[in-house]
Amino acid sequence: MWQVTEDDLSAIATGAGILGTGGGGNPYIGQLRARQAIRKWGAVTVLSPEELPEDARVVCVGGIGAPTVGIEKIRDLQSYHALRAIEEYTGETATAIISNEIGGSNSVEPLIPAAIAGLPVVDADGMGRAFPEFQMKTFFVYGVPCCPMAVADEKGNSVIIRETITPHWAERLARATTIQMGCVACYAVAPMSAEQVRRTAIPNTLSLARNLGNAVAHARSSGSDPLEAILTTCPGRILFSGKVVDIERRTTSGFARGSVTIDGLEQYSDQRMVIDFQNENLIARIDEEIICTVPDLICAVATDVGEPVTTELMRYGLRVTILGFPAPELWTTPEGLAVAGPLAFGYDTEYRALQV
Amino acid sequence: MWQVTEDDLSAIATGAGILGTGGGGNPYIGQLRARQAIRKWGAVTVLSPEELPEDARVVCVGGIGAPTVGIEKIRDLQSYHALRAIEEYTGETATAIISNEIGGSNSVEPLIPAAIAGLPVVDADGMGRAFPEFQMKTFFVYGVPCCPMAVADEKGNSVIIRETITPHWAERLARATTIQMGCVACYAVAPMSAEQVRRTAIPNTLSLARNLGNAVAHARSSGSDPLEAILTTCPGRILFSGKVVDIERRTTSGFARGSVTIDGLEQYSDQRMVIDFQNENLIARIDEEIICTVPDLICAVATDVGEPVTTELMRYGLRVTILGFPAPELWTTPEGLAVAGPLAFGYDTEYRALQV
Repeated sequence: MWQVTEDDLSAIATGAGILGTGGGGNPYIGQLRARQAIRKWGAVTVLSPEELPEDARVVCVGGIGAPTVGIEKIRDLQSYHALRAIEEYTGETATAIISNEIGGSNSVEPLIPAAIAGLPVVDADGMGRAFPEFQMKTFFVYGVPCCPMAVADEKGNSVIIRETITPHWAERLARATTIQMGCVACYAVAPMSAEQVRRTAIPNTLSLARNLGNAVAHARSSGSDPLEAILTTCPGRILFSGKVVDIERRTTSGFARGSVTIDGLEQYSDQRMVIDFQNENLIARIDEEIICTVPDLICAVATDVGEPVTTELMRYGLRVTILGFPAPELWTTPEGLAVAGPLAFGYDTEYRALQV
Repeated sequence: MWQVTEDDLSAIATGAGILGTGGGGNPYIGQLRARQAIRKWGAVTVLSPEELPEDARVVCVGGIGAPTVGIEKIRDLQSYHALRAIEEYTGETATAIISNEIGGSNSVEPLIPAAIAGLPVVDADGMGRAFPEFQMKTFFVYGVPCCPMAVADEKGNSVIIRETITPHWAERLARATTIQMGCVACYAVAPMSAEQVRRTAIPNTLSLARNLGNAVAHARSSGSDPLEAILTTCPGRILFSGKVVDIERRTTSGFARGSVTIDGLEQYSDQRMVIDFQNENLIARIDEEIICTVPDLICAVATDVGEPVTTELMRYGLRVTILGFPAPELWTTPEGLAVAGPLAFGYDTEYRALQV
């Protein structure tokens, strides 16, 4: 058990930005929003999955939409409204909140309703990274129902996705709702039990995000290499390093989609990496050869300071280093890969686990 | 009180086709669906608004979508699923069903859930005609909340539009949901009281549809003029008569939109009428002069037999007569015109009541 205070938010934002694989919502804006909530309503207690009471009712909250829009149309208290809407619908009262995804601003989204409602958050999430689509959560892969769920906007509109024939239909209906709401909304899923959280969530990811951010900050202040600090805190490896020479990006069907092209520098000179993204980085190729794919993590950080670069802020001229991290084991099973492997994103290639 | 049996359905379909002003869903398909339901589950009792018990809980059901799609993707029991979904959400049990609009297949849509659930339907509706958008109902104009409402498809997906800041937002979110569901769905609105029905519904419209249909059938079998029979049963007048020479129609944003051009015959020769529609006929012009607009009814019928012609079946060469009927009085107040007058559809013209 620990407390998230204002002092932790900068580190969490950096760590969640790295784990966000380019998406999950802008971590800096998320940090500012969480800071405002904690300042107003107080620090938030973090419980590990094991510390949850057996009768816990854990509501997963998250932002949904395109990160390109989310940096202009900033969320307010939608996740709190969505929490109250799903509580009213189910007739159950939440006793804890869990993040849908540890990547980007979704890492700290739960802190806002938790601070308002005086509830703890769970040190875990449904991805261990970020993914673009609602149904891409380990919760649902391993049998937690994805509905009912509530979607709320900042204006006062709210919708319950009551029942769907597949988790993908929940994504489809929630996405259409989100687009109407201005491409930025928040959702809350019907409560999970402690047993469901322990069995299906990726554990200890809020701690991991904080530890990653602290490691980067420490490296910077001590003059050591921030990239090495990242890779020591979270096992992974450098995939590529260079300069962004092209970025193609469009906001379509409620997502930010596109690709970034990076020309190599130093030992990567004369090589070119292209990364496709749908909110998050999906597949990285060097000179047409596939180097890393979902569900493994493909993360861009500024080469000099180790600060994560999200897809909506990627731009020409940036010096970036691309890091790869192996996916959590819950994603590399056949069930996990069916939901979030390369084929699920339309890439006709087998998943080959990143070797670290 | 009367009973809708299979024998009434043909007359109701014809009358509702006329009152549908080109839309409301294909009345022939609606008739076949209602016939199947009554054959399987039995005749449905019709209560006038005055006959409703004081503690009645009346659920408005309707089809939503584009009529162009509705003739290819035929509805099943979605309105029954929507009824059950809104009952579950509100915790209230319906004691009667009311039509959202008497026009087109929506006139008989309530018979399907009513037959299955063994409930009566009310001899009234929320339009006294058909309109393309969800919020365009006298119920909502005069203070009945438009939410919560349930939207259901034929596959097993259902959504609750829980709360919206305006009735137009309910339309917007329900329409986006419907498009995902394949542009054809059904909805059910939270129960109304008997007092709300009596105060805000257009009364006796199911009887009117049946009487119109019977008058047309009688005229045909007795060799008298079906158009005269229509105008005797429901006061109105002939606006134009001619041959369809052009039809422009597209299915967009969940609606069938377009215009039909009719060249005049006999006393209308050398004149040309153009009618714009959005599911329903909105505005009729002769040689650029506005002849009739919403909320007054603009209805196309086959000149020879008085059979209504809906916008999705309008085609080159048809001989049609365009009838105009004054809108129910609940629509011609300032509040009514604000929701369904010409300005509400983007036409920069004042409503001028049709003179009969």
